[in-house]
Amino acid sequence: MVLPGLIGVLGGMGPLATVDFMQKLLAATPATRDQEHVPALISAIPQIPDRTQAFQGRGASPLPAMLACAKRLEAAGAGVIVIPCNTAHIWFEDLQTAMGIPMLHMVEAVMEEALATCGARLRIGLLATQATLASGLYGKHACAPDGRVVEWILPTGWDIRQCVSPGIAAVKAGRLDEGRDLLLRAACALHQRGAAAVVLGCTEIPVVLNDQNAPLPTIDATAALARRAVEWSRSALHGSEAPGVV
Amino acid sequence: MVLPGLIGVLGGMGPLATVDFMQKLLAATPATRDQEHVPALISAIPQIPDRTQAFQGRGASPLPAMLACAKRLEAAGAGVIVIPCNTAHIWFEDLQTAMGIPMLHMVEAVMEEALATCGARLRIGLLATQATLASGLYGKHACAPDGRVVEWILPTGWDIRQCVSPGIAAVKAGRLDEGRDLLLRAACALHQRGAAAVVLGCTEIPVVLNDQNAPLPTIDATAALARRAVEWSRSALHGSEAPGVV
Repeated sequence: MVLPGLIGVLGGMGPLATVDFMQKLLAATPATRDQEHVPALISAIPQIPDRTQAFQGRGASPLPAMLACAKRLEAAGAGVIVIPCNTAHIWFEDLQTAMGIPMLHMVEAVMEEALATCGARLRIGLLATQATLASGLYGKHACAPDGRVVEWILPTGWDIRQCVSPGIAAVKAGRLDEGRDLLLRAACALHQRGAAAVVLGCTEIPVVLNDQNAPLPTIDATAALARRAVEWSRSALHGSEAPGVV
Repeated sequence: MVLPGLIGVLGGMGPLATVDFMQKLLAATPATRDQEHVPALISAIPQIPDRTQAFQGRGASPLPAMLACAKRLEAAGAGVIVIPCNTAHIWFEDLQTAMGIPMLHMVEAVMEEALATCGARLRIGLLATQATLASGLYGKHACAPDGRVVEWILPTGWDIRQCVSPGIAAVKAGRLDEGRDLLLRAACALHQRGAAAVVLGCTEIPVVLNDQNAPLPTIDATAALARRAVEWSRSALHGSEAPGVV
């Protein structure tokens, strides 16, 4: 049942972010016809308990449902698991321990691109859910292999409550204009506080923010994970060659 | 492993059309938060032989690869299969015979919407691949239950060669502006020949054509199938209630 190069996408957190990830998977692949695209199997099963509420002790753990979805992907032949949801990475190690196949870490993919993009000036803003911010998910990855250290600029408590959290909720509810306005305001605040770039560290955020409309360069966590997944798939299929027919 | 209401999407034909289908699945669902969306499992495995070439005897049959993908979805718990590719429906009956779970037919979904939209004036244009046109896939569904008969207006051979086929190929290659221009030209020709509406009968077409930019009302096969899939999922989950937690 295993298909070489088949990417398992543990999505649905939220559903729009999963569609955005699929678009970025296509954008990251050099292809002129259907058959040259990388193969993917996507779990868009959104009945996974809310990650932020669980982290804050206000709801059930998402781990059992995430594990059930990842096992579905493995059973169907996926060779790797990626999760286009930053906050879900709080449970990454637990999930990896329970799974029989490798997983690609979103924050590692982001850090690699951030270090390449930002040069010496490593004051980087971070827009993310309350749980991602409080968990230190990005903070743990602050040290580069070359010794440089990222100085993270996080939104203030006021900005989180007034802009970031309601902005993410608006995107999840499909109110994209409202979400864009709120999240742009939070990005501007980070820029004014000296951020040289901003990590879009919740997969709902790049649905509405990007390099064209933000006041500072953006580092898109969804796109970074998509690029890493395409690299994995293409190297699983003999170096950089296009995949063969099923 | 079966999850009630889980929609299996046999996609990848092509990959952009699959993303478009996912967007239309979300748009067809009344939801204000992640957990209220319908659950879906998507095979975006594009290494399926070209459907048009196979129908014309110029390439391998896509049936074995389509069956392998559908079986993956069934093994992973899907309760129904939908295929966001019109031309692939040439093999619908063969696939249905080999599968243990039901499938929803795209052309039936389109005809239901076309008959509701068009009232008494049933001169309908059809934009589709050469194989879909030559197979009579839509022609077979011309008779309505109430006795009305659809008069299909098909593109001329010249329009197929100059506009429809290269337009679809341009979308598959990601050249959306070029694809839009070519397909708009074909839609205008059908309008001039008296079509009251046009069925976008290849899933690449609604990626670039819609009611806003077309010169006549459009009937979007992708959206019609998405609406039918959401109905199936919601009724599988106790009438119209929202799905529960996994």
